[in-house]
Amino acid sequence: MARRGDHDDRRRQLGRAVWRVARSQGVSALTVRRVGQEAGWTSGAVQYYFASRNALLEYAFELVQRQTLERLATAAETVGDEEAARRAFHQVLPSSAEVRAEAEVWFSFLGLALGDPALRDVGRNGQRIVIDAIAAAVVRSQGAGVISRDLDPQLVAVEGVALADGLCVNAMYRPVQLKEGEVVDLFDRWLNSLR
Amino acid sequence: MARRGDHDDRRRQLGRAVWRVARSQGVSALTVRRVGQEAGWTSGAVQYYFASRNALLEYAFELVQRQTLERLATAAETVGDEEAARRAFHQVLPSSAEVRAEAEVWFSFLGLALGDPALRDVGRNGQRIVIDAIAAAVVRSQGAGVISRDLDPQLVAVEGVALADGLCVNAMYRPVQLKEGEVVDLFDRWLNSLR
Repeated sequence: MARRGDHDDRRRQLGRAVWRVARSQGVSALTVRRVGQEAGWTSGAVQYYFASRNALLEYAFELVQRQTLERLATAAETVGDEEAARRAFHQVLPSSAEVRAEAEVWFSFLGLALGDPALRDVGRNGQRIVIDAIAAAVVRSQGAGVISRDLDPQLVAVEGVALADGLCVNAMYRPVQLKEGEVVDLFDRWLNSLR
Repeated sequence: MARRGDHDDRRRQLGRAVWRVARSQGVSALTVRRVGQEAGWTSGAVQYYFASRNALLEYAFELVQRQTLERLATAAETVGDEEAARRAFHQVLPSSAEVRAEAEVWFSFLGLALGDPALRDVGRNGQRIVIDAIAAAVVRSQGAGVISRDLDPQLVAVEGVALADGLCVNAMYRPVQLKEGEVVDLFDRWLNSLR
């Protein structure tokens, strides 16, 4: 029997294989067989770690959200109150290849989640935890006087996450090419309007 | 042979059947057979109107974008310059059941488009045309003095569409429940910050 650490590693390997298939081939290609091929595994080996395609997809969706949350936690630990909100929002802006890759996976799951209550719950819970983490950073920045205390921190978080999500959608289709710096500038202008 | 008008009607019926399947069962269910069942047609009849699943999906994706553009055109014709930008942006806000339904379909296609260059082009072109139509409304409102002339109208349109898109994503998962009025208020506050 595999050790627990190995077991978790293998599940993460498969989760990342789901991401690669979704990004390169689209969600129609997300079968156990194709994900197994991408990871270099047989379908049987995949099924040893995940009882069903649904379980595999839920895990991969959770994994991408967990990555965002880990970045948010690290940002919260390493920054002063004045910069807390700005740095938190920057973790969900498509201003780096890492976030753009995450966003492609996350948004890919929207269409799957409509027909799958379990995936929908994963999306709802993940978005709620991200909004809560960012709202906590907004409260810190309100304390430091860079965001008005008159604003509801949760609403500020919802608005900022919405703007960041929309910029991610723009980055997926690129109807208008924005450079990484332009995305950050546009977002920071919005943030400065909350002083 | 069917008359041209009938032919277009039938294609629209199938396009709307694609929307219903995507919204109720998710994009994994978008096969010719399932869409045919939803419309009450045989697969063969569907294939008379669309040579392939891809052609059917491209058409359904274009159709949802066309509906948005028609609302934008109607709004542009029936409103003065002062209200032009506000009314244009409201056509893409999830503040009505119609837009929320449209958004569910549109966002569902993001994950399919990653693996399908033709769908990706439909999404890119549609988003560009929406942004251009809204930018034209922004120019009118800049002329009427309700949006600063110092701002680039295309960037204002990109930012506002991004915010509206993100609010649509929020409306799909509802991690935080916003009422229709709250969505409009939040958006109008953003718009007022552009004066």
